[in-house]
Amino acid sequence: MSEMLMPFEKQEYLERLKKVKKSMAEKGIDVLLISDPANICYLTGHNAWSFYVYQMALIDMNEEMPYFIGRYMDAFCGVVKTTWLDEAHVRAYSDDHVQSLTKHPMDYVANVLKELKLDKKTIAVEMDNYWFSARAYTRLVQNLPDANIVDGDLLVNWVRIIKSPAEIALQKKAGKLAEIAMQAAVDNLHAGVRQCDVVAEIYSAHLKGTKEFGGDYPAIVPLMPSGETAGAPHLTWTDKKYDDNIVVAVELTGCYMRYHSPMARTICIGKPKQIVIDTANIAVEGINAALEQIKPGNTCEQAEAAWRKVLSKYGMEKESRIGYSMGLNFPPDWGEHTASLRPGDKTVFQPGMTFHCIPGMYLDDFGVSISEALTVTEKGCETFAHYPRKLIINN
Amino acid sequence: MSEMLMPFEKQEYLERLKKVKKSMAEKGIDVLLISDPANICYLTGHNAWSFYVYQMALIDMNEEMPYFIGRYMDAFCGVVKTTWLDEAHVRAYSDDHVQSLTKHPMDYVANVLKELKLDKKTIAVEMDNYWFSARAYTRLVQNLPDANIVDGDLLVNWVRIIKSPAEIALQKKAGKLAEIAMQAAVDNLHAGVRQCDVVAEIYSAHLKGTKEFGGDYPAIVPLMPSGETAGAPHLTWTDKKYDDNIVVAVELTGCYMRYHSPMARTICIGKPKQIVIDTANIAVEGINAALEQIKPGNTCEQAEAAWRKVLSKYGMEKESRIGYSMGLNFPPDWGEHTASLRPGDKTVFQPGMTFHCIPGMYLDDFGVSISEALTVTEKGCETFAHYPRKLIINN
Repeated sequence: MSEMLMPFEKQEYLERLKKVKKSMAEKGIDVLLISDPANICYLTGHNAWSFYVYQMALIDMNEEMPYFIGRYMDAFCGVVKTTWLDEAHVRAYSDDHVQSLTKHPMDYVANVLKELKLDKKTIAVEMDNYWFSARAYTRLVQNLPDANIVDGDLLVNWVRIIKSPAEIALQKKAGKLAEIAMQAAVDNLHAGVRQCDVVAEIYSAHLKGTKEFGGDYPAIVPLMPSGETAGAPHLTWTDKKYDDNIVVAVELTGCYMRYHSPMARTICIGKPKQIVIDTANIAVEGINAALEQIKPGNTCEQAEAAWRKVLSKYGMEKESRIGYSMGLNFPPDWGEHTASLRPGDKTVFQPGMTFHCIPGMYLDDFGVSISEALTVTEKGCETFAHYPRKLIINN
Repeated sequence: MSEMLMPFEKQEYLERLKKVKKSMAEKGIDVLLISDPANICYLTGHNAWSFYVYQMALIDMNEEMPYFIGRYMDAFCGVVKTTWLDEAHVRAYSDDHVQSLTKHPMDYVANVLKELKLDKKTIAVEMDNYWFSARAYTRLVQNLPDANIVDGDLLVNWVRIIKSPAEIALQKKAGKLAEIAMQAAVDNLHAGVRQCDVVAEIYSAHLKGTKEFGGDYPAIVPLMPSGETAGAPHLTWTDKKYDDNIVVAVELTGCYMRYHSPMARTICIGKPKQIVIDTANIAVEGINAALEQIKPGNTCEQAEAAWRKVLSKYGMEKESRIGYSMGLNFPPDWGEHTASLRPGDKTVFQPGMTFHCIPGMYLDDFGVSISEALTVTEKGCETFAHYPRKLIINN
């Protein structure tokens, strides 16, 4: 086991597992089969781009150490050398299971459950996870006729929602990297510059970071919708040059050791129309009102309501949620899929929770997005990054 | 509709759909529901980082234009302005379906099928796709009691396996970007340099590309296992400094408008051990033998057998496949999950197919990986990039 890739002490992993097992016990789950790479990393320390093939962590209620089940080339050299798991807790399927038209890795997983005599237990799987497909589910059910297969989706995510001081420390570094990356965007967004060249500067600045620490790959690439499609928030970039007098809605993140601190700012190349300035002012007033409400004891929907109240004062509405829990993650999303800042979400803020508050205003022909990543503190909340919370005008 | 983000003429999309519908007819499928963002992009032109929430393309056998079903903020501004679909073929679910604990986007999708009077048809879904979860499947089945839901996994992927000249042209540009990116790796990999700083140079060079064209985000980030974990091929990077006298197995890609041309090279910092040199020589002899066999009429397993024959001459074995079809893609994989260069794969090479041939040798304490991305031509094959096919030694 090399410490190199594991940012936490073994003790921290054990404490996480304790919380996961408490939740398993409450739900009557004997065995939890985890597909989500963030959940696997959270509990085992495994951090590699190996999630494009099937891999799982198996949490047995009666065993301290999780098992890792994956592809041979990932399991033995990678997991054994870079996580706190020992070789006895690693199982590897042969390569002819990979993207095969005949064999499926879930056949192998089922056999591991039989080998461990867990195949007659109550086994939870992550039903709504990117990394556990419809066929993975049907094959597993088919292969385990005596098991009681139940839904354990988001069980680990809900444990992840409260970060330890060690995790917060990584997100603060990510916050610094977000400032650096956004500054690179602002410095380079000018008419006549190619979009890809701006993104090159963002990536370079983010990865190089500071003398003390450098960046990791983001779970979402920089989103850079601009001009007539700036209202489409998830567009990326092309190699076309920026026109003058356009709005660019930049959403990026700092990422340090897989921990994120996202940030959105809206940058005008040239002179903005008055409606863009007005919308940005409302957005800033609204996010300020929302942040005021993020404190222990308040609920997620209360923060959203404060934002909505500001909007309605100006006769505006916004349909979508304005934020979500986030932290440790892998592509395609830095969000944790648990609490959202939206009507009906009664999650109570607690110290150590971390959110991305992003009340984006995506209109037909432009978008304004000004966001903050933050942690809930004892008395309120604190942003990870410190960057002017306003419309940025590059003249 | 803006041409900006669509690299192909409408006619090319129509021809792709014709092939897809031919395959649907052969399989008795009335409606194909596509989750894979590469398949959606292939048929509609939609290219955005919107796949972290549910989105689908619906192909109705009796309708020329596909439907796009997605989140409101992605559908109307994004899809209508950047693809060849018109507004009448876009359906958007409300934001309270997003990562919700109560509503599921598949409830909405089922309602769209009812609205279009397709809910009693034979409907195919992509059963083994990252973007169609176990719950998506069970909810859809539950919501469509009169439908005959069947497996349409990889149907579009098998159409994608043969590229058009316009697609090959994009991959050739990606090949040029791969050369540029690898050169940045080679120029910067020295003892005492931080891993993240090398990756910054790789990203920057790739994105800036040439004066004529710049890079897109890769479906897989640069993989940079090094030192004692260089045998774990899917490790990424940290902000630690490289030691002297180590091996770094670099796998990266050029990516242009979502089309890929991957490349792996192994770079020694300092003086390599003799076993590394010997392994690299075998790897080069082996890949040369495999490339010789990649020509129309031969099968995938024949190419792999040629490689394996070289290995066995030296008393070596390698378990894993040595290549796969690739091209248009989004994270987490540039591979197409169809043909693989492995025993038992009887796919016959045809002109226009494009592969990544990567016979990586991952040993316990080092890895050697030297690869080529290529297209099958009328008489043989042609690599997209032109970069020395050998062990690189940085003294």
